[in-house]
Amino acid sequence: MDNSRKSIDAASLRMVEKACRDCVETVWDRYEAQQPQCGFGELGVCCRNCLSGPCRVNPFGEPSRAICGATADTIAARNLLRSVAGGAATHVDHAFEAVEILEQAADRRVPYEIKDEAKLKAVAERLGISTEGTDKYQLSKALAARLYSDFAPGKETMDMLARNVPEERLTTWRRLGILPGSPDLEIRRAMHQTTMGVDADPVNLLLATAKMGLVDCYSGLKLGADVQDIVFGTPVPVKTEANLGVLKQNRVNIVVHGHIPFLSEKIVEWARKLEAEAKAAGAEGVQLSGLCCTGNEVLMRQGIASAGNYLSQELAIVTGAVDLMVVDVQCIMPSLAQVAACYHTKLVTTHEIGKIQGAEHVAFRPAHADEDAAAIVRMGIEAYRRRNNGQVEIPPERAEMWGGFSVEAIVSALAKLDTENPLKPLADQIAAGNIRGAVGIVGCNNPRFPQDGVIVPLAKELLKNNVLIVVTGCVAHALGKAGMLCPEGAEAYAGPGLLAVLRAIGEANGLGGPLPPVLHMGSCVDNARIGDLLGALAGYLHVPVSALPAAASAPELNHEKALAIGTWAVDLGLLTHIGMAPNILGSPVCTKVLTEDIEGLTGGKFYVEPDPIKAAEGILRHVDAKRKSLGL
Amino acid sequence: MDNSRKSIDAASLRMVEKACRDCVETVWDRYEAQQPQCGFGELGVCCRNCLSGPCRVNPFGEPSRAICGATADTIAARNLLRSVAGGAATHVDHAFEAVEILEQAADRRVPYEIKDEAKLKAVAERLGISTEGTDKYQLSKALAARLYSDFAPGKETMDMLARNVPEERLTTWRRLGILPGSPDLEIRRAMHQTTMGVDADPVNLLLATAKMGLVDCYSGLKLGADVQDIVFGTPVPVKTEANLGVLKQNRVNIVVHGHIPFLSEKIVEWARKLEAEAKAAGAEGVQLSGLCCTGNEVLMRQGIASAGNYLSQELAIVTGAVDLMVVDVQCIMPSLAQVAACYHTKLVTTHEIGKIQGAEHVAFRPAHADEDAAAIVRMGIEAYRRRNNGQVEIPPERAEMWGGFSVEAIVSALAKLDTENPLKPLADQIAAGNIRGAVGIVGCNNPRFPQDGVIVPLAKELLKNNVLIVVTGCVAHALGKAGMLCPEGAEAYAGPGLLAVLRAIGEANGLGGPLPPVLHMGSCVDNARIGDLLGALAGYLHVPVSALPAAASAPELNHEKALAIGTWAVDLGLLTHIGMAPNILGSPVCTKVLTEDIEGLTGGKFYVEPDPIKAAEGILRHVDAKRKSLGL
Repeated sequence: MDNSRKSIDAASLRMVEKACRDCVETVWDRYEAQQPQCGFGELGVCCRNCLSGPCRVNPFGEPSRAICGATADTIAARNLLRSVAGGAATHVDHAFEAVEILEQAADRRVPYEIKDEAKLKAVAERLGISTEGTDKYQLSKALAARLYSDFAPGKETMDMLARNVPEERLTTWRRLGILPGSPDLEIRRAMHQTTMGVDADPVNLLLATAKMGLVDCYSGLKLGADVQDIVFGTPVPVKTEANLGVLKQNRVNIVVHGHIPFLSEKIVEWARKLEAEAKAAGAEGVQLSGLCCTGNEVLMRQGIASAGNYLSQELAIVTGAVDLMVVDVQCIMPSLAQVAACYHTKLVTTHEIGKIQGAEHVAFRPAHADEDAAAIVRMGIEAYRRRNNGQVEIPPERAEMWGGFSVEAIVSALAKLDTENPLKPLADQIAAGNIRGAVGIVGCNNPRFPQDGVIVPLAKELLKNNVLIVVTGCVAHALGKAGMLCPEGAEAYAGPGLLAVLRAIGEANGLGGPLPPVLHMGSCVDNARIGDLLGALAGYLHVPVSALPAAASAPELNHEKALAIGTWAVDLGLLTHIGMAPNILGSPVCTKVLTEDIEGLTGGKFYVEPDPIKAAEGILRHVDAKRKSLGL
Repeated sequence: MDNSRKSIDAASLRMVEKACRDCVETVWDRYEAQQPQCGFGELGVCCRNCLSGPCRVNPFGEPSRAICGATADTIAARNLLRSVAGGAATHVDHAFEAVEILEQAADRRVPYEIKDEAKLKAVAERLGISTEGTDKYQLSKALAARLYSDFAPGKETMDMLARNVPEERLTTWRRLGILPGSPDLEIRRAMHQTTMGVDADPVNLLLATAKMGLVDCYSGLKLGADVQDIVFGTPVPVKTEANLGVLKQNRVNIVVHGHIPFLSEKIVEWARKLEAEAKAAGAEGVQLSGLCCTGNEVLMRQGIASAGNYLSQELAIVTGAVDLMVVDVQCIMPSLAQVAACYHTKLVTTHEIGKIQGAEHVAFRPAHADEDAAAIVRMGIEAYRRRNNGQVEIPPERAEMWGGFSVEAIVSALAKLDTENPLKPLADQIAAGNIRGAVGIVGCNNPRFPQDGVIVPLAKELLKNNVLIVVTGCVAHALGKAGMLCPEGAEAYAGPGLLAVLRAIGEANGLGGPLPPVLHMGSCVDNARIGDLLGALAGYLHVPVSALPAAASAPELNHEKALAIGTWAVDLGLLTHIGMAPNILGSPVCTKVLTEDIEGLTGGKFYVEPDPIKAAEGILRHVDAKRKSLGL
């Protein structure tokens, strides 16, 4: 496999070469070893849901049915529902842990503060909780109780959904029968529905999948993001750097990786507190950096540098400079243990459902968060003493990267242009055509594509065409590394109309230059922020979200989470570009419903296009059509 | 495929031949068309949990890792956990619906009575609910509220678990860290745990699987069975018949199929009420029969005849005599729509998550249960008018079959021998060796085995060796059809010691002959009854369940539910025979843990043996070893 097919990131390519020299197996070696991949699995027509199977149906002939009689349509739809349920389960589980921490923080049983009272009040008020005469602890406690109540059956749907979405969406989803009762009930039910001999109606299964997208957002993304803001503060713009060049030769390099910020926030704190110990070990201090969404969380709120995205995780260790990598859950390659074993790197797992053979497990206990975080940082300092400098090669690449663009931060920046109606300047510039449209680019890396190889050209093409971009997840790291998340990125990539707008906002906010043309809104759970922003804009314009000149894109999607998020985006009414089809192409019904028919139901649909330039064209066509419908 | 490899049931074989003559495709045709099945899937080393994949690792060489780095151990363990979570989800979803009906019955919002006040009080008292001064509706309401509370997080584990198992089991499971917090939370968490980049420790995943077995029983099987007893009455012995010969030439044949008894109980009622309409249509009346577990539910409580088990479902329609088949969820072949289309048979789906393309959907609404059931019975009468008698061939085979052996019924029969200590005669006969041991044979059919071809010879061999057998699910139908669920079965198959005991119990109960040697305890959710019986016996003897000369067996397992139930049996401390390995053999760790190491943790383990005679020998060795340990 030619290196050009592995990554477009120069730092990554250096480390791919070093891995080769160091005889370290990486994800691309394993990807190559897996070729050719199973066509039945890729087309979604392999079923392993009972012990009569596995069955594989032939989408082009016989056998056209599984042993039980399930068709390609049924099998693919069942598999998709189970995958989206898996994705939703990750976010719900994450958010549920956040609610537990909120409750414990309210009781002062864990060493976390309630940092953002304004957000606390805003979230509570939206849920109809009285905020009068309560202190932040009492209010947090009341809020936690209300949030738990979303997990109990009995309501039409979760309050986090009903009270956080435009009325028009609620009506649409109610009419389609896809309002979830409660998140866990729906996940349980989806699992039941996909077992052998239950549902054999692909459309019924696809509607259940659409429902699961709503579970994913409103009891996962939105719930997690809101609660994390309350506990840790709503992000505000912050400047840092991205790429493997953020690792430091003479410092203890600790990399946080995973998704849940509760431990990593404490690691930030203790990395600072234990500087002296690092110096005593001969280092100049502790250099913290982040990977994937834990990286995004500490970047958004603490300005911690980004070491990279999904496909950089092994490569960070290959630098030889990472003393300790601490992980929790999701997107963590089990191979990290093998890569770490080739260097002095200490790999630490911390979550009870996220253990790795070959890693050291330190069970993270929120009530003892300080103790646990300090112990882990000290393990990093200890590992630094064992670092073999002969093995160290830190790539020089690093780019200025801004983060922290919560909805509140964006609105606040816009308020500098119009205090009364902060969304007006945005709407006006869209109407004037200086901003042609807005696209949220989100999601993963996937070794099927060169790392960032679809994301970056797509973003460049859209910016050139005056499309404002918001990003989360691994896409944020990708565009950060590519220099598009900083004011210089505006000068370099934004079309003239967009650039003028970014300059105006930048000047009004005293940045001494334009706003970055790509706004980093956070981790994957922070995709909820994109929904909130679109909802606010649609509300301001008195149109449905589906009428906006906007789209979603996951160019290099990989995890089941991306399928769940994408499903929600389609529910929301967005054209949702994906760089590859999910495993459904063996099913004519699934393919047609998801890429065509569903538009008549929710206003959104999936649009599959691996080529970034063609994808940009398709998105622009969509944006222009929506502009036309709005009379723009 | 030779017919002898399809079934050992003469009625089935007749219908297989008729299907061939009628050009109707059956499950065996599809099974043959699927050969050879995918070895990666069979070994459990195929992963489709992200869009980098599908990945297939080679258990004998390279590639030994998936793209993310997951090993065969991790992949197989993840797949198993997801399957067992699927199985548990079906039972939890079923039980949850039962609790909803109980609550609505208490509020008199649905046309269901609270039939069994004694059971209501017993269940409530075990949960610590005061039964003083409340009527059955108030108590049902309080009970439903308590049962719902098991679904809310916050307790160490579900009350239905903590208050229904021997203290020794609770301690063991607590020590292993496998006590579930709440059922839906654990299903959600299992889905999270099995997504890409979360758990890469097969032992951690297997412990989560063991936990899921407890979810399956105590928030699924046990919860469902107890609530259904309260609403419909705890079964008492009842005599009926089994096999396709129960269909009637001159009557409207309605077959109920699926798992949840709420609609089928009403269909029984309305089939009786609408006899006159059936007669007006030219029939002699309505003949109701059942398939799979809906069949078992109405057999246990209403004495409705069994038309057969899983592999008989298509064949029932092939008789040409089934006017209407009404289904809900689980184990319903999607192919039924195609088979029904070859005859006049009306296929009706009724559950919102169980639709089939080509079937007519009548949404069952508990509040309108009478109306819905009457409409469905009338659809059957209407279809009878269209019956083509030239297509009808009903096999003559039918066998006397007894059911209704709830724990209460068994204890009550034993009480005729010893009113004070009803378990004493059973324990004494075990001690004396007249009953060598007891085995619960449960589970499915699977076209990998000739229908009933492992179940029947295994049961014969065990009976011959004086082993008392209890059965549920498709195994009950199998042994019913084979004539082993009636007093004559005792004369024909029981060893002399066992026969003497069965005669003594039969005489004491005025049966005029021996008790059947195989006691039908109900549907798959009624496996909880087996756990209760073993728990009671272990309690009487002051030993752990794992010390009893007892075992479980699922000779022809198929559905993910069977894996969940089997996991629970192992948790309970039982040797659990299965006729085929689940899809884990590509993982040395999974194979060793589940068939060896886990015995040191729970006392139980899986024992894989497809040959019924060898399996009987293995089970007898186990029973004898346990007898020896008890000093018998």
